[in-house]
Amino acid sequence: MIVRTPVVERLAELAKLGAYEGGIDRGLFTAPEHAARLLFASWARAAGLALSQDGAGNLFARREGSSDRAPIVVGSHLDTVRTGGPYDGAYGVVAALCALERLNAEGWATTHSVEAVAWAGEEGSRFPVGCLGSGVYSSLNSLASIASLAGDDGVPFLVARDGENGLLPHVPVRDDFPRPAASLELHIEQGRIMERAGARLGVVTAIAGQVRAEVEVTGESGHAGTVPMIVRHDALAAAAEIALALETLACQLGDCVATVGYLVVEPNQTNVIPARVTFRLDARSVDDDRVDRLEAGLRDECSRMEIQRGVVCATKILERRAAVPMDGRLRAVLHETLGGLDPHVVDISSGAGHDSMCIATIAPAAMIFVPSAGGRSHVGSEYTSPEDLELGVEALTRSIVAVDALLTTFQ
Amino acid sequence: MIVRTPVVERLAELAKLGAYEGGIDRGLFTAPEHAARLLFASWARAAGLALSQDGAGNLFARREGSSDRAPIVVGSHLDTVRTGGPYDGAYGVVAALCALERLNAEGWATTHSVEAVAWAGEEGSRFPVGCLGSGVYSSLNSLASIASLAGDDGVPFLVARDGENGLLPHVPVRDDFPRPAASLELHIEQGRIMERAGARLGVVTAIAGQVRAEVEVTGESGHAGTVPMIVRHDALAAAAEIALALETLACQLGDCVATVGYLVVEPNQTNVIPARVTFRLDARSVDDDRVDRLEAGLRDECSRMEIQRGVVCATKILERRAAVPMDGRLRAVLHETLGGLDPHVVDISSGAGHDSMCIATIAPAAMIFVPSAGGRSHVGSEYTSPEDLELGVEALTRSIVAVDALLTTFQ
Repeated sequence: MIVRTPVVERLAELAKLGAYEGGIDRGLFTAPEHAARLLFASWARAAGLALSQDGAGNLFARREGSSDRAPIVVGSHLDTVRTGGPYDGAYGVVAALCALERLNAEGWATTHSVEAVAWAGEEGSRFPVGCLGSGVYSSLNSLASIASLAGDDGVPFLVARDGENGLLPHVPVRDDFPRPAASLELHIEQGRIMERAGARLGVVTAIAGQVRAEVEVTGESGHAGTVPMIVRHDALAAAAEIALALETLACQLGDCVATVGYLVVEPNQTNVIPARVTFRLDARSVDDDRVDRLEAGLRDECSRMEIQRGVVCATKILERRAAVPMDGRLRAVLHETLGGLDPHVVDISSGAGHDSMCIATIAPAAMIFVPSAGGRSHVGSEYTSPEDLELGVEALTRSIVAVDALLTTFQ
Repeated sequence: MIVRTPVVERLAELAKLGAYEGGIDRGLFTAPEHAARLLFASWARAAGLALSQDGAGNLFARREGSSDRAPIVVGSHLDTVRTGGPYDGAYGVVAALCALERLNAEGWATTHSVEAVAWAGEEGSRFPVGCLGSGVYSSLNSLASIASLAGDDGVPFLVARDGENGLLPHVPVRDDFPRPAASLELHIEQGRIMERAGARLGVVTAIAGQVRAEVEVTGESGHAGTVPMIVRHDALAAAAEIALALETLACQLGDCVATVGYLVVEPNQTNVIPARVTFRLDARSVDDDRVDRLEAGLRDECSRMEIQRGVVCATKILERRAAVPMDGRLRAVLHETLGGLDPHVVDISSGAGHDSMCIATIAPAAMIFVPSAGGRSHVGSEYTSPEDLELGVEALTRSIVAVDALLTTFQ
């Protein structure tokens, strides 16, 4: 029997902040995002948790442990993409709070302090850096390096942070970024592997590595009626062949994905042979070798098109990120803990990036997934059933206790 | 020995009207297009030709024949696309004037009156109807049907025509649209078949028929990192397959072209599987059966994608136009006439549309092509050598005489 928590009601309350017909738009240090942090703070205060924040905008609600060991951090993010849904990020933050309330209610004493965390600006939808807050916390980025970074509205990070929708009033600002004892993150799957497998809980094995590349294919323009097929250098036809070849390669390799989600044609006129096409490849796998092979495949296909179609392909790597395996000991403990709640618990990799990618560079990190209906995410119709949301909170609560015990025994 | 005419100088003068860094922009009834007609009128007056215009904006400069038979019309257009070049259209108009001046200078008497014509608004770049003036002249469109047609600046046709850049002052307006005895049009090829064949003059066999279709491919969006390849319904991958299949089909059929020049992806984000792609097919051939087969191929490929990829394709025909063969007797006379000027004269089809398509519905019509350097057209760098321009004027002059003789003998 799962104990009911306020998780569903709180998510519904948060979902109102930034809501519009296209979903939820809650960029870092905007009015709705500020309101979301205020709500988090009011819930934390009511639960008797000690609030603090840091210079990156990360917000912590601490439940003291019986020792002065480094804390276990448990959280996710409150910001959304521009067309976000109610669960991506917010669920992991609210669930962390609910878990600490459960520990209070049950009178559990943990050796480690546990902090429910709202990591700042994970989505990178206002400032052009993903996992902004957790990246600073993990020393992957310095505060100085992002201070003058302009948001998409032109406002620099520091100006936004120190403005009316920035750091919370009456909450102490930490100067230090203590290396945590461990990190846990509960998140919706954002895919439909669990739904298809009939699993309600998943233990994340690794967060996929990724390459994002931009290719500019330059062909030769011409009148669509007067240039014979045989002498054309059609930039769109070349791009189409490359995109399809990469789709085939990803299917052949398996355990990886390759997507061309962005493609722009110039001059994009019905009666003009495309002169130039710019497209972007997003290739991911938990196996870095497969990502490397997709990147190599992209270069091979570009070369093939240069020879076969007389176009010129200029490739630029926009982002390259290695896969991040989750901590093996934590995974084992989570698998055992979650198995008691869901007999169909699965091991699952994460194709999407998460704050845990950053925290994993400074501490053992693990993630728990609950299903996403239809795999929908980054849309207003994102949905996870109340039963699954409650089961996730239960799983997170039990996992905190189990991880605290593991670290107490073995450290 | 080819007699020098003012054709090169006049084209250079016209090229200044509407010129900007992107080429020449001279839409119907704009200031630069009005200036071009004024220039045409001043040259015609200086040559002693009688000017008239009609309600569609077509402008006529008449050299009287020895009979009251219907005139031979010889012309092209002075308007350009938004990124036009100096020769497309303007060459045929200026060359017609130069030809009449040559007939004057040589003292030729023709049985038929001959009219040098600037057909109005061939390109359809301001008002959304191609071959506007020649279409009205040929009764394919009525003046009433286009009177309230809005230009891309929102100004209705009649308001523009009666405004300061509309019909010319001091030029009588014809009420009638006399069915001509024949029509000739000299034009640049806009392709590079002649350049490759080493031909300086071409006799057009037919103007290609055309189908323009728009396809909306609806797939299923999703996170590029979390949706496995095998369960995707990627709208861009489907569109890419369709475009490539049509390219292959056009190559297999031969004597036809199929182009996807316009393609737009939604939501067009690097990390989102394309939900929807809208693209347009432009298929042309002088053999209507081949165009039909390309259209059928489009529908077949759409069906195949619906089955294989689970996408939905909605196809809409934007335009369907049968091929227009040029008049057989005129072609034979032109071939003989031009053969005396260029031993390499070729028969050539026109992939592009021209005013002659319309005039051919009411009178015997024929066209002469001169080469386009590199096949370039609809760009500022459009180029035909002065020697070829002069040869074209000579060819047109001799053709007028030959056609006049033919019609005099056989009518």
